[in-house]
Amino acid sequence: MTKTELHDRIQAKKSFLCVGLDTDPAKLPAILQNEKDPVLSFNRAIIEATHDLAVSYKPNLAFYEALGPKGWETLQATLETIPEGLFTIADAKRGDIGNTADAYARTFFHTYAFDSVTVNPYMGRDSVTPFLQYPGKWAIVLGLTSNPGAADIQYLSTGAEKVYEATMRQVAGWGTAENTMFVVGATRPEELKRIREQFPEHFLLVPGVGAQGGSLEEVYRNGANSQTGLLVNASRSILYASSGADFAEAARAEALRMQGEMAELLG
Amino acid sequence: MTKTELHDRIQAKKSFLCVGLDTDPAKLPAILQNEKDPVLSFNRAIIEATHDLAVSYKPNLAFYEALGPKGWETLQATLETIPEGLFTIADAKRGDIGNTADAYARTFFHTYAFDSVTVNPYMGRDSVTPFLQYPGKWAIVLGLTSNPGAADIQYLSTGAEKVYEATMRQVAGWGTAENTMFVVGATRPEELKRIREQFPEHFLLVPGVGAQGGSLEEVYRNGANSQTGLLVNASRSILYASSGADFAEAARAEALRMQGEMAELLG
Repeated sequence: MTKTELHDRIQAKKSFLCVGLDTDPAKLPAILQNEKDPVLSFNRAIIEATHDLAVSYKPNLAFYEALGPKGWETLQATLETIPEGLFTIADAKRGDIGNTADAYARTFFHTYAFDSVTVNPYMGRDSVTPFLQYPGKWAIVLGLTSNPGAADIQYLSTGAEKVYEATMRQVAGWGTAENTMFVVGATRPEELKRIREQFPEHFLLVPGVGAQGGSLEEVYRNGANSQTGLLVNASRSILYASSGADFAEAARAEALRMQGEMAELLG
Repeated sequence: MTKTELHDRIQAKKSFLCVGLDTDPAKLPAILQNEKDPVLSFNRAIIEATHDLAVSYKPNLAFYEALGPKGWETLQATLETIPEGLFTIADAKRGDIGNTADAYARTFFHTYAFDSVTVNPYMGRDSVTPFLQYPGKWAIVLGLTSNPGAADIQYLSTGAEKVYEATMRQVAGWGTAENTMFVVGATRPEELKRIREQFPEHFLLVPGVGAQGGSLEEVYRNGANSQTGLLVNASRSILYASSGADFAEAARAEALRMQGEMAELLG
């Protein structure tokens, strides 16, 4: 999917909502427990209930890997459930030396047909560039993350810059705003503003609204650009809006609430 | 496996060799192409040919993930082929926010019974500590990697330290030398020496000997401690020592050459 196509879909749906499919078997509603593949049944119901309100889905790989080989079948089947035109993100945070990064890129873009994959930049250029070789596919590189531990390495000062700034500046030079996005946590509004100033063209994937406490309005005010330039992710606040039999309706209600707020912000 | 147990095995085998099972289907000997699971057949033959010479095996997950759900079955079956007492490393380089890192730790220590997993520290403390909660299991955290891109982020200066040094100093404080190792590339002998001085007790996993050009003797001279403190990995130089029907014998010959050199260094 190109940047323009993504922007068009955001405009058409009045939404820049990404639903994080971080499906934890321990948190599934009791009503699904006798299903053959409870995680898949849950994902299907969530996708059915939210796909007109979202522009993107982001399964976090950890939750599928933890289920063993079968978890990857569930992931594949989940992907097949996502209607065409929605931007899919493998939240994998991979990063390895060149020949291995090649194999990871093959995994997510070829073995599984994701539109994008999240990438950890700690190992530098040759760990990132293999993800930039697939036309229409995207590397979404960690910039400034939403978690408390972001302060430990990403906030280290290198003099004029912090580590996350020096990292993002370099990453931006390895690719373009047509094949690279950045992860920037919603819990860092001031930094988000500066990041947007420095990278006016890049899409930003913003986790941390909802369970982690970031504000959607603040994210939009600080992070939007002329092509919106934002995918705001919510996972737990949508998936687990209810633990009862009405989990899908409750998920839709929460997605609708967020989409409504987004429509207002988009004007 | 405890640190003392690992050291005992190194002493008994006169080897600190880790064989990297980075099995690339495109590089398999023609003789295996009609096997039901060529990657598994290859791994089995390599393990049979080298397990008395090595103390550790390290499958790099990328090569298994690229095969789809079946790749994880191959990984599981490969693990079951590794004789007891060999230290197994999931070379996964995972790293994510706390609740997700929990799921990754469960994946590699519980769903699959690895002794250790490689971890990327860019996201900080809460992305690493979940891997330190399993008695007898290890987090092997990226310190200074062997690839050219290591220079981009890891070598940034924070004043008195480089980013990799500040990272390792912090990581060392989150765990102990009984549950944390570091990845340090064999291609960085001078840094290896300084790292050993700063972290006298930690085991170091050292890739980059062989295909990437690092020297075993130099690694030992700069990186060994009183408990050896080293696992030196070789992947391609052993796996692909021959592409003919004699691939397993050729792999054994190369592993034997390295183990012989290690035995001499261990004295």
